[in-house]
Amino acid sequence: MDILIINGPNLNLLGRRERSIYGDRSFEDYLKELKALYPNDTISYFQSNHEGAIIDQIHAVGFEIDGIVINAGAYTHTSLAIADAISAISCPVVEVHISNVHKRETVRHHSYLSPVCTGVIAGFGLDSYRLGVEALKQII
Amino acid sequence: MDILIINGPNLNLLGRRERSIYGDRSFEDYLKELKALYPNDTISYFQSNHEGAIIDQIHAVGFEIDGIVINAGAYTHTSLAIADAISAISCPVVEVHISNVHKRETVRHHSYLSPVCTGVIAGFGLDSYRLGVEALKQII
Amino acid sequence: MDILIINGPNLNLLGRRERSIYGDRSFEDYLKELKALYPNDTISYFQSNHEGAIIDQIHAVGFEIDGIVINAGAYTHTSLAIADAISAISCPVVEVHISNVHKRETVRHHSYLSPVCTGVIAGFGLDSYRLGVEALKQII
Amino acid sequence: MDILIINGPNLNLLGRRERSIYGDRSFEDYLKELKALYPNDTISYFQSNHEGAIIDQIHAVGFEIDGIVINAGAYTHTSLAIADAISAISCPVVEVHISNVHKRETVRHHSYLSPVCTGVIAGFGLDSYRLGVEALKQII
Amino acid sequence: MDILIINGPNLNLLGRRERSIYGDRSFEDYLKELKALYPNDTISYFQSNHEGAIIDQIHAVGFEIDGIVINAGAYTHTSLAIADAISAISCPVVEVHISNVHKRETVRHHSYLSPVCTGVIAGFGLDSYRLGVEALKQII
Amino acid sequence: MDILIINGPNLNLLGRRERSIYGDRSFEDYLKELKALYPNDTISYFQSNHEGAIIDQIHAVGFEIDGIVINAGAYTHTSLAIADAISAISCPVVEVHISNVHKRETVRHHSYLSPVCTGVIAGFGLDSYRLGVEALKQII
Amino acid sequence: MDILIINGPNLNLLGRRERSIYGDRSFEDYLKELKALYPNDTISYFQSNHEGAIIDQIHAVGFEIDGIVINAGAYTHTSLAIADAISAISCPVVEVHISNVHKRETVRHHSYLSPVCTGVIAGFGLDSYRLGVEALKQII
Amino acid sequence: MDILIINGPNLNLLGRRERSIYGDRSFEDYLKELKALYPNDTISYFQSNHEGAIIDQIHAVGFEIDGIVINAGAYTHTSLAIADAISAISCPVVEVHISNVHKRETVRHHSYLSPVCTGVIAGFGLDSYRLGVEALKQII
Amino acid sequence: MDILIINGPNLNLLGRRERSIYGDRSFEDYLKELKALYPNDTISYFQSNHEGAIIDQIHAVGFEIDGIVINAGAYTHTSLAIADAISAISCPVVEVHISNVHKRETVRHHSYLSPVCTGVIAGFGLDSYRLGVEALKQII
Amino acid sequence: MDILIINGPNLNLLGRRERSIYGDRSFEDYLKELKALYPNDTISYFQSNHEGAIIDQIHAVGFEIDGIVINAGAYTHTSLAIADAISAISCPVVEVHISNVHKRETVRHHSYLSPVCTGVIAGFGLDSYRLGVEALKQII
Amino acid sequence: MDILIINGPNLNLLGRRERSIYGDRSFEDYLKELKALYPNDTISYFQSNHEGAIIDQIHAVGFEIDGIVINAGAYTHTSLAIADAISAISCPVVEVHISNVHKRETVRHHSYLSPVCTGVIAGFGLDSYRLGVEALKQII
Amino acid sequence: MDILIINGPNLNLLGRRERSIYGDRSFEDYLKELKALYPNDTISYFQSNHEGAIIDQIHAVGFEIDGIVINAGAYTHTSLAIADAISAISCPVVEVHISNVHKRETVRHHSYLSPVCTGVIAGFGLDSYRLGVEALKQII
Repeated sequence: MDILIINGPNLNLLGRRERSIYGDRSFEDYLKELKALYPNDTISYFQSNHEGAIIDQIHAVGFEIDGIVINAGAYTHTSLAIADAISAISCPVVEVHISNVHKRETVRHHSYLSPVCTGVIAGFGLDSYRLGVEALKQII
Repeated sequence: MDILIINGPNLNLLGRRERSIYGDRSFEDYLKELKALYPNDTISYFQSNHEGAIIDQIHAVGFEIDGIVINAGAYTHTSLAIADAISAISCPVVEVHISNVHKRETVRHHSYLSPVCTGVIAGFGLDSYRLGVEALKQII
Repeated sequence: MDILIINGPNLNLLGRRERSIYGDRSFEDYLKELKALYPNDTISYFQSNHEGAIIDQIHAVGFEIDGIVINAGAYTHTSLAIADAISAISCPVVEVHISNVHKRETVRHHSYLSPVCTGVIAGFGLDSYRLGVEALKQII
Repeated sequence: MDILIINGPNLNLLGRRERSIYGDRSFEDYLKELKALYPNDTISYFQSNHEGAIIDQIHAVGFEIDGIVINAGAYTHTSLAIADAISAISCPVVEVHISNVHKRETVRHHSYLSPVCTGVIAGFGLDSYRLGVEALKQII
Repeated sequence: MDILIINGPNLNLLGRRERSIYGDRSFEDYLKELKALYPNDTISYFQSNHEGAIIDQIHAVGFEIDGIVINAGAYTHTSLAIADAISAISCPVVEVHISNVHKRETVRHHSYLSPVCTGVIAGFGLDSYRLGVEALKQII
Repeated sequence: MDILIINGPNLNLLGRRERSIYGDRSFEDYLKELKALYPNDTISYFQSNHEGAIIDQIHAVGFEIDGIVINAGAYTHTSLAIADAISAISCPVVEVHISNVHKRETVRHHSYLSPVCTGVIAGFGLDSYRLGVEALKQII
Repeated sequence: MDILIINGPNLNLLGRRERSIYGDRSFEDYLKELKALYPNDTISYFQSNHEGAIIDQIHAVGFEIDGIVINAGAYTHTSLAIADAISAISCPVVEVHISNVHKRETVRHHSYLSPVCTGVIAGFGLDSYRLGVEALKQII
Repeated sequence: MDILIINGPNLNLLGRRERSIYGDRSFEDYLKELKALYPNDTISYFQSNHEGAIIDQIHAVGFEIDGIVINAGAYTHTSLAIADAISAISCPVVEVHISNVHKRETVRHHSYLSPVCTGVIAGFGLDSYRLGVEALKQII
Repeated sequence: MDILIINGPNLNLLGRRERSIYGDRSFEDYLKELKALYPNDTISYFQSNHEGAIIDQIHAVGFEIDGIVINAGAYTHTSLAIADAISAISCPVVEVHISNVHKRETVRHHSYLSPVCTGVIAGFGLDSYRLGVEALKQII
Repeated sequence: MDILIINGPNLNLLGRRERSIYGDRSFEDYLKELKALYPNDTISYFQSNHEGAIIDQIHAVGFEIDGIVINAGAYTHTSLAIADAISAISCPVVEVHISNVHKRETVRHHSYLSPVCTGVIAGFGLDSYRLGVEALKQII
Repeated sequence: MDILIINGPNLNLLGRRERSIYGDRSFEDYLKELKALYPNDTISYFQSNHEGAIIDQIHAVGFEIDGIVINAGAYTHTSLAIADAISAISCPVVEVHISNVHKRETVRHHSYLSPVCTGVIAGFGLDSYRLGVEALKQII
Repeated sequence: MDILIINGPNLNLLGRRERSIYGDRSFEDYLKELKALYPNDTISYFQSNHEGAIIDQIHAVGFEIDGIVINAGAYTHTSLAIADAISAISCPVVEVHISNVHKRETVRHHSYLSPVCTGVIAGFGLDSYRLGVEALKQII
């Protein structure tokens, strides 16, 4: 199976940024561990702080790979354009969040992406990504 | 590990009720499969259409078992009392939903439970329960 | 024809409770008169102050009888779970109210049940139940 | 008994307009059947697409006949003036709707007329008119 | 001076309609008294229950007479079209109400006409019309 | 007759303040003219920028004089306490405004005073006060 | 092709009314020019200040002609009944506005007609009508 | 005097649940102390996590005892049915809360019960119950 | 113990003002009775219609006495400044109301003071003050 | 004449994306046809999924060419920055949409661009672009 | 230059009140330091807890001095009357806040004063006043 | 000291864009003057119309320089992602605006950045940047 993990804005700072919320591990470090769990699958990774670059990437792979796990960071709550990109492609997309967004500020309670994704996983720390991959594998 | 799955109102009709949304498999049938996946863990099951009975059950086990996976059905969106019960106990609770509630009516977009649960998993059909168990095992 | 009338919370006090709004006749008294009007039909009656018990009852009969006339009292305005129970069953359901709820407090203007019932009848005193039965007979 | 049925805007197109919602029978056709059910009563009929004409008609009969059954169509949701006309007269008025307005767009969930009518009947197709006449006869 | 008084829907029933709110005097009766107070002015009168007819009348006189005193009844709260007609003409318009609309239902607290009229007078019973004429005479 | 005119905050600057809205005449100047129109009545005047001082003054005269004409300025829109003072006394109170508040910012469209005053007059410049006195004389 | 242009309330005053918003040309004058552009098509014209008359006209032609270009003026924002009339007929309808309604007061930002018309054209002065005809011709 | 104290959902966990908010004393322990303060009065106690059971209990005693002190816990904010039960009975009811609900989440600021209770006491820890009994004794 | 009772605007009229809501006893009269109940405590009294004077008084005593019982009247609902004054001082403050504010107009349902007071007591007539003193004594 | 057509996010997928809404023709294909209709004008084309790139492009041409036709896709509803860019330049801009946005989700009913564009055209499929060009030519 | 600093309610307690928010320095102490920074300018100071007194003071100096720096404390969020006073005078006014009001409760996010002041400075502790003086000097 | 000034979308057009709001001076011109005021400090400058580029830049410098002065233009009101970037870094950030955003459209009254910046300065024209630098120097 061929899966892409997309991380949105500020997630390049994981391990360095607000550690009480996001933990102190970098995503690159975690990614190695995650790949090791799925030796027979291809797990690619893309991170960008640019809304447009995320859309370009979704277009580039969304008709060809088996599924996407996306943590769009703050764009989750402001980007109808990323939601439209997800609607436009043919592979399933799973939305994940490291923190439980429902415990945080009101603006983070609404997601533009949820209604166009297959499902949502939030609040399990970095383990949310593994659960996202698990979910995708079952769907496909 | 000792885990309880709680199902709320109308989920006793799974497999019989609105199959286009909830699928055509009964929960009892699925539960057998789920238990088989975790032969070393104890997975108990409780279903009730009574808000008070769900609270009683959360109190009864919530200081002793390792974790709860709850799909509170419609009470997710109307019961502050179940949310208070979850806050009151000491074991972690994972909220799950069969359907992607964010694709449905507005009233189902808000959950009283999400801010007091560890995390939320929604939209993966019955597989949401397995993902919930997976998440709990990682937390514990 | 086999019809069930369900009365929700506080309707056991009819004839005793706020008589200026609900009149001074008990439901049991009225029920006799109503049954006499339809000698060839079976009209059963169920009342409970428990949301869960009303759901249990809807499940118990909703795949077998010809129709339900429901006055869910205050649960009309707070119970998404009863609405889900009505959606889940196969027989038609008619929502009735003794008083004209639109003349009362704002909270009583919205009904969770209306969108999942066949139709709504409100404001005709106890005669609302007879009109509900009339409507059901025509539907069936 | 002397009863007037008032139909508001676009109801002259019944049987021709959006048949999936309103059915394929003209009101004139149905009216014959309805009158036949009540051979001892006078059932008159008035239809207009003009808000002002409906008000004029309510004034013209509202102090003299025994009751009015009104389906004000879209004016139900926008005309405070028709509501004021109903408040101004002395005979009882029953509000009816062919479709279950609560299953439709939000704008159709609020009625200016409900708080000034005796009661409301909605969702039973053309049979809503018969139920309205039934209700009126009981009130009077 | 040449002044037109326009009365909107249901005001033809003054003296007959909800007397606790509107009093028990007909407008025709009051009008005689009012005209007698201003023997040197021409005070005309127009009443209609039709929104369109009120607009037609505003157009017909609004570029020629000295001023209009309007009590648009319920159209005050629902008719942007009458407001547009007032904006379109050149003579000043004074909005009057018999009752104090701010003591009544919320829907009567907002007026489409107020922002396009010169001023507003409400709550003085039929005397509101005299005050309206007084105000107009001062403006002109 | 014994009438008190009360002016609220910033109205001491009339003639000096935002002349395009309020005109360029001081209230003292206008008051002379107004008194001259009613030689047989006593028209007193009170102005304060202090909410509490206005309440004290309403208490001091409100059980004894024949009526009050009040322009509470910005306190119209923020002072429930002045509204309570008006409710507490026994003489009638007329609310007046120099400008048409409905043409201005939204915050000025709601008045705490209107529901507790006999009536409201707005938009006729300083002439609003004369109309207020006229209205009071008719009421009394 | 057979096209009807419908103008709603106050549009009979074009060229005379608020010229800074609507320009100084009468619609009759413009209509001549428009007809000349489409010598092979029949372009009829109907204007009324009466909501009911507009509905009557839509019914009269809506099952027979090729399309309607409608500028419902203020009724755009208050008439659900005209929207229902458009839903009821079979020919396509294009909504046009002379001014850019989105630059004006909030109440003009919402249109009851837009969801039931084929498309919307706003802000191009009288040229909006020509664009409406162009659009209709392409649809048909 | 005969008084019933009713505790709603999760209050059976007092002393064990979120101690920073609710303190670390069980209600049973406190109740002994409270009864000792009023040796000449009968103070009964009822706790349930079931909305329906609370309603049943209110019906059972509400026409016979002298008064009720109720802390409905989370049902305070979601149960219109308990409010209706309180309206239906004849004895006075005092609403109490251990914590100051106005310092907590927004959902806890609104109470369905307050408008139908005699009065409200909140924020004094367990002493709120004693104050409730004090208040009841004064009322009776 | 040294306690201050503060009464806000219009409460100087108690016994004279809207007696159906506030009763017919003056506060001075009641105060004598209240002091007699607590012969060992010092109960002072301050009333003002001025928001600023109430703030000054809170500052003057709030770091020195044992507690404050405040009924801020209408300022309860409009004065963030009094709330800030209460936050600023060190002694506990109990908010009281004579009437049950939750049974009255919506504007009286929100209190700026509640979140900064220790607790709230409302609806017990003048006895609310005694309960406030009782509560304070327990806290201290 | 020199005109630029700007397409926003996801419009590069036209013909491939959600064909039931957007049709099955690529924009490049349509563009050839459009250019052929205006042989004497220069019609350039720019598409980007990047909000910033669209702003850069508007700046680059907006002081020099004759006009812009923009379909900003999802940015229509979320980008105040593009709206500011349109305000900043000197050439006229026409907003177009392929689908009738008013028939779709609520979030698509509000446009940040509409108040700063000359006019809006929506719902005519790809023909909306031709109508946009037509409109621009008339304006210039 | 002649500048007045106005402090509103509770700011007389600076250094004594909620030190975690406002710091532990008294304003008098800070004022000496501030004056020392501007030896050639006259910096006066006025503090009051009375809304009316602040208005009086604004009137007293607002047509004569060079500028005002105002921290209206809680009146920032509730006083339209102070805003009107600022609109009425001729000198520029700068609004300052010690804390970053946008990090605090929602009620503090809206300021009546901001739209009528030249500019706003918030969040820099006592240094906000120096920045306000700096800003004023540049404006003048 | 090492300070970065960041300007967001459309601010590259300063001096050219809507001069009545933003003035007619380019930022480059102003920057020279500003740097001259602080000869001992390093003031760098970054402008972009791309949300993602602004985030990248904040990350690049935010753990190393002494502070940032940011005018995020329209992104102030729509970008939660830039707010998250500011939360993620360690140096202080001051938000500035050239115009007084509170005098402009409602959408500009809310800032995502204010709650995560140290403070806010708005309305002083280009001088807002100097005040921002002043404020930063004091903080550091």
